[in-house]
Amino acid sequence: MTSAAPRPDWIAVDWGTTRLRAWAVGAAGDVLGHAESDDGMGKLDKDAFEPALLRLAGNWLGEGAVEGAVDVVACGMVGSRQGWAEAPYCATPCPACPPGAVAAPARDPRISVRILPGVKQASPADVMRGEETQIAGYLAECPEFDGVVCLPGTHSKWVRVKAGRIAGFRTAMTGEMFESLRRHSVLRHAVAESGWDRSAFEDALSDSLAHPEQLATALFSLRAESLLQGLSGNAARARLSGLLVGIELAGVRDLWPGQPVALIGAPALTSIYRDALSAQGIAPAVADGAAMTRAGLAAARALLDKAA
Amino acid sequence: MTSAAPRPDWIAVDWGTTRLRAWAVGAAGDVLGHAESDDGMGKLDKDAFEPALLRLAGNWLGEGAVEGAVDVVACGMVGSRQGWAEAPYCATPCPACPPGAVAAPARDPRISVRILPGVKQASPADVMRGEETQIAGYLAECPEFDGVVCLPGTHSKWVRVKAGRIAGFRTAMTGEMFESLRRHSVLRHAVAESGWDRSAFEDALSDSLAHPEQLATALFSLRAESLLQGLSGNAARARLSGLLVGIELAGVRDLWPGQPVALIGAPALTSIYRDALSAQGIAPAVADGAAMTRAGLAAARALLDKAA
Repeated sequence: MTSAAPRPDWIAVDWGTTRLRAWAVGAAGDVLGHAESDDGMGKLDKDAFEPALLRLAGNWLGEGAVEGAVDVVACGMVGSRQGWAEAPYCATPCPACPPGAVAAPARDPRISVRILPGVKQASPADVMRGEETQIAGYLAECPEFDGVVCLPGTHSKWVRVKAGRIAGFRTAMTGEMFESLRRHSVLRHAVAESGWDRSAFEDALSDSLAHPEQLATALFSLRAESLLQGLSGNAARARLSGLLVGIELAGVRDLWPGQPVALIGAPALTSIYRDALSAQGIAPAVADGAAMTRAGLAAARALLDKAA
Repeated sequence: MTSAAPRPDWIAVDWGTTRLRAWAVGAAGDVLGHAESDDGMGKLDKDAFEPALLRLAGNWLGEGAVEGAVDVVACGMVGSRQGWAEAPYCATPCPACPPGAVAAPARDPRISVRILPGVKQASPADVMRGEETQIAGYLAECPEFDGVVCLPGTHSKWVRVKAGRIAGFRTAMTGEMFESLRRHSVLRHAVAESGWDRSAFEDALSDSLAHPEQLATALFSLRAESLLQGLSGNAARARLSGLLVGIELAGVRDLWPGQPVALIGAPALTSIYRDALSAQGIAPAVADGAAMTRAGLAAARALLDKAA
């Protein structure tokens, strides 16, 4: 941003374990700029958060104090115990913008940083940080939504939303199982780095939904078919995904029948889950994850300002 | 071994992906010496196998050619395409000592090396290298055995043995899922490096057998309970194992009811599987993996000599 660019009204921050994403937002809610880095929470010490944010967003801040501090609102793992400042979990049932934001200690007078809390569930024990804000963004657009929100990813969340609140949720380790098996098991010899085979995905999905108990043997079959039958790396990749998404869907199947389902996430992931749900006769609404994060941070900021 | 020690009649070698194990065997079948190293197949180029074997077992060989070459019989991944010399898979149904051993190219005149083939299955596609030799060892001791042999490990094998032959088998990636999740997922924060909690194992096993489709959510619950309820690292470790052994048993459940079951493996592993099977009303026979490998290599060598 050059010095001629308008100073943002506030900065929206999505700060996860591996990625830091920020948007400069104008007074009308327009996005003036976007930046991201791999300064995720996982690799930062307490006193490294502010410098990481300033590296990414410092050129949006102008000369500073004379103009007053710029509001920064952040969600995600930045609010965990290992984050910049702990924003304790709020217990379900709760609003998607739960109370309990905390101020993060910033030395630079040009910023005033608040971190949103995550959500916890006592039984079965479960936690989220960041997804609640995406749900708040979705509810800002569709306030009447009553159903199940699926947020696929490293830790896929299936969230029951009722009367504008988070009623309960479950987390499936699908994305992380995919990555750890793809990179660190014998399947690394069979599964391609990228590429796809839609019918291989659909067949594996259907097998896995019907026989989730076969997962551990079905996984090894990718290696064996690669050795004995020349299974392609693309097909192996799609089948690995199909097996894992299949057991995820099988595990939450009691949640979705008869309920509207909304998918929130990156298009590459939501398209896979949309295909998977379609094959089960579900036609989910789909929303972009980054847009929902921004909308949710805006909704949370409006509430914080009202409370202040 | 000092120069006064007797020269072995032959050398038994179990050469897997990560470990190389060798035994010096006397004419009466007595073990004169044992040695092992981490020179597994996975880290050796073609021309590095002979030096690795000589580093480990060279001092058993005496001055060499004047006395004739010492027989070396090896099983495991050393016979794969990436191994010392490829011993192509034999297709099921087949004997546990299938034909097709190959000579490995050795320059040292003190050794004469033969590598045993693995076993493949066309449908469902599956492969093994090394476990067939352990089964041959078990059958040398219990020639009348008719039932299912379970060889737990990185890739657990469940093998239907009938009339002294391998009728068919399935592989579950249980050990590898355990290690990749324990080391490379968020569960690394929850799961202890060692330690155990038997009742946590049994509860998770029972849950997983009853609800294998819940695996992906049950895995994340270890992290959530660790964060919210102080779940101990020992209990998390035992539950991770219980969930994975449970889905393995659920997947092969059609194999074992009404059949004698034999467990072959390292005592630390077979004791876990014996507990798991006992909880299902199965009382398996248990045999030590290393002893079965030696017995199977001896049985294979006797057959090779008969054929020669």
